[in-house]
Amino acid sequence: MQQETPPDKEEIGDGLEQGHIQSVIEAVEAQDADQLNELLEPLHAADVADLIEQISQPERVALVELWGEGIGGEVLSELNESVREPLLEVLPPEVVAEAIRDLDSDDVVELVEDLEEEQQSRLLEALEIKDRIGVEGALSYPEYSAGRLMQRELVAVPEDWSVGQAIDFIRGEDEDDLPDQFYHVILVSPAMKPVGYVTLGRLLSSRRQVPLTEITEPSFRTVDVTEESSNVAYLFNHYHLISAPVVDENGRLAGMITIDDAMTVLDEEHEEDILRLAGVDEDSSLADTVWQTTRGRAVWLMVNLVTAIFASMVINLYAETIDQMVALAVLMPIVASMGGNAGTQTMTVAVRAIATRELTRRNAIRVSWREITVGAINGLGFGVVMALVAALWFGVPMLGAVIALAMALTLVAAALGGIVIPIALERFNIDPALASGPFVTTVTDVVGFFAFLGLASLILL
Amino acid sequence: MQQETPPDKEEIGDGLEQGHIQSVIEAVEAQDADQLNELLEPLHAADVADLIEQISQPERVALVELWGEGIGGEVLSELNESVREPLLEVLPPEVVAEAIRDLDSDDVVELVEDLEEEQQSRLLEALEIKDRIGVEGALSYPEYSAGRLMQRELVAVPEDWSVGQAIDFIRGEDEDDLPDQFYHVILVSPAMKPVGYVTLGRLLSSRRQVPLTEITEPSFRTVDVTEESSNVAYLFNHYHLISAPVVDENGRLAGMITIDDAMTVLDEEHEEDILRLAGVDEDSSLADTVWQTTRGRAVWLMVNLVTAIFASMVINLYAETIDQMVALAVLMPIVASMGGNAGTQTMTVAVRAIATRELTRRNAIRVSWREITVGAINGLGFGVVMALVAALWFGVPMLGAVIALAMALTLVAAALGGIVIPIALERFNIDPALASGPFVTTVTDVVGFFAFLGLASLILL
Repeated sequence: MQQETPPDKEEIGDGLEQGHIQSVIEAVEAQDADQLNELLEPLHAADVADLIEQISQPERVALVELWGEGIGGEVLSELNESVREPLLEVLPPEVVAEAIRDLDSDDVVELVEDLEEEQQSRLLEALEIKDRIGVEGALSYPEYSAGRLMQRELVAVPEDWSVGQAIDFIRGEDEDDLPDQFYHVILVSPAMKPVGYVTLGRLLSSRRQVPLTEITEPSFRTVDVTEESSNVAYLFNHYHLISAPVVDENGRLAGMITIDDAMTVLDEEHEEDILRLAGVDEDSSLADTVWQTTRGRAVWLMVNLVTAIFASMVINLYAETIDQMVALAVLMPIVASMGGNAGTQTMTVAVRAIATRELTRRNAIRVSWREITVGAINGLGFGVVMALVAALWFGVPMLGAVIALAMALTLVAAALGGIVIPIALERFNIDPALASGPFVTTVTDVVGFFAFLGLASLILL
Repeated sequence: MQQETPPDKEEIGDGLEQGHIQSVIEAVEAQDADQLNELLEPLHAADVADLIEQISQPERVALVELWGEGIGGEVLSELNESVREPLLEVLPPEVVAEAIRDLDSDDVVELVEDLEEEQQSRLLEALEIKDRIGVEGALSYPEYSAGRLMQRELVAVPEDWSVGQAIDFIRGEDEDDLPDQFYHVILVSPAMKPVGYVTLGRLLSSRRQVPLTEITEPSFRTVDVTEESSNVAYLFNHYHLISAPVVDENGRLAGMITIDDAMTVLDEEHEEDILRLAGVDEDSSLADTVWQTTRGRAVWLMVNLVTAIFASMVINLYAETIDQMVALAVLMPIVASMGGNAGTQTMTVAVRAIATRELTRRNAIRVSWREITVGAINGLGFGVVMALVAALWFGVPMLGAVIALAMALTLVAAALGGIVIPIALERFNIDPALASGPFVTTVTDVVGFFAFLGLASLILL
């Protein structure tokens, strides 16, 4: 029995023990394959992958070249894509083919789907014909669909079987034909349509003669093969599913998705949202090159430059006003900054609530009103604070009145923009996490500068 | 067999069919309990909870009062805390007690842990003595610990048993004593220390006389009862665990955590990070009142006001310079805005990479250098673009040179601040998602205004 000790506190904090990584690098430098193997063998595949991701690219290549056949399919499928692909080119094709042969079909799909065509077909040719057909079938479905996510390996039995028949069937199966992990036995009609499932726990605790249909789970639901993977993750999380059968366009059983895959998708979706909200390319990784990173960041900065220039043009309209009272130039960034922050708060709440389906047509109006009211209250409150600061700082009481009013107007506009823009983008099927930011910033900057400088030119001069 | 049809595309998009919600509200208004029951009975508990969350507070109270005993423990445990607590006060204690009696211990803990003491003890008294001891035991562990997350219900057998003995044991157990869902049989030593586990699939497919120790899973790892729940979620996600035994300070089996609970924690952690990065109170919910929301947002806006005033003081140092060339006031927000955005990009990547443990001591220097290089390249690139815009706009070529240089300096500072600040906060055990924003904004604003206005006063005047 291979048993790993649970990582202690420090390891959890650091992912991997740093001293261990150092020893691995030293073994690679010394070209000591035995020592390398001894260091890597006891680690979980996920930790080996983390280790490979944390060292530099030349070290990675040296490591896999030395380790050779030791690298298994599990390590390969745990690796981040941008690290894995260069390594797949370094490894001899037969090593890769051997490594992926033991993987479930969903892991093979994940591994080969982004490879160049030539490399992909070379790998697929190395698979057994049955597995290859399965993988090619999955690749025929669109990217980010349930069809790509599902595995072919599953346990399905006729719906009219009894507990005893199902148990005998599983007991009689070859170990290699069973999935690595499975939690349900799927009941299928004669036309191969899934009609329910039974948990293994229930199967074990029921008497042999009980018909399977009597002990199916109420949580049963199927997923269409074309369903988007983000919706699949939502379903698993919302309904606390452990596994779900996948059906093709005719309602026939095509595969099965398990919760660990759904958890991975959920994790990726969150990562995507958080990065998109900050204007970072969602496919970026710490392992990217400087050049890839620069390009990924530049897109958003370009958009931001355009909106910033637009806001400057508003300021330019009031150049004369500023010329007469330079305190306006000193204070105006405060109004814009508060607006930008309040807008980001509301926008983030709205984007999240849309993603979790808490913000719907039903409560959109109510939630919007709440945001606008909150914006007005905070706008007036901080307006008063800022009025005191400005009046005392520059000795002009009316300057305080102007900034208070501008702050209130800007924070209401920020709330309105922060909630309406994501909702509108969602209606037009544009990802609100990706596109809301520039619009909201433009609204808060333009309203902020217009309100403050406009009011100042009306009232103060 | 109760079987729910899978939601169609539109339902997935909207969470719940809006017409259905309308019918429910009409039944509540008509005080038609039969109709209400007919509408709610077929829904999954998670959907009923969503429905209750989406209607207004008076509608919620009217609904639960009419539905009474119909509301089960599952619906209660699916409800968002801020919606559930007022409802628990409306429902008769015996209805709530009856509802929670069927829940697994982890769900009861989640439901009662935030109640006021009096309400909590009233509910606990209604539980059977065995369940009550379990729940009180869990409540004795710190909040957000594995002890709170685990369930007492599990299947454990002596390590020296065979497959046949384990199967006979499960078959002989009372249905009520088995967990609602279980995926592993835990092997324990005579001192009740978990030493391995066997999947039910493996149990089913092995011969009766095989010793359990021969078919344990290599993925086995235990979790300390005091482990933080965020670390538990990380372990499940990282090692693709389905369930994990929880051990007390003496290494004895105390409970079990399953992947669906870990998935919920992972989801909450992400939500927390994304909201904290945007300066929103992480416990906020769409169901909060205007006043709760206003206070939650005001904290961050206050911090932002202080940093914005600080940045203004930098501008004020150069009031005379601006007075001599008002174009500087027009252009300076562009430099600060680009710096702020670039800083947010780097900071978000850093905060995420710390959360996913990809950014470690080992690669911190390398990643920082990459960020700084990217900042320098983008700073120079956008500096050149902005130099052309400024020179053409205001007809002063040297103004272009000044803004280009200021932009490059600011973007390098943004990269440096964006990566160093989250890493430093993490070292001091402060959540980087919560606290990085204000520091990074201060750095980018101050450097942006100083660089642009300072260079302008040196070169242009």
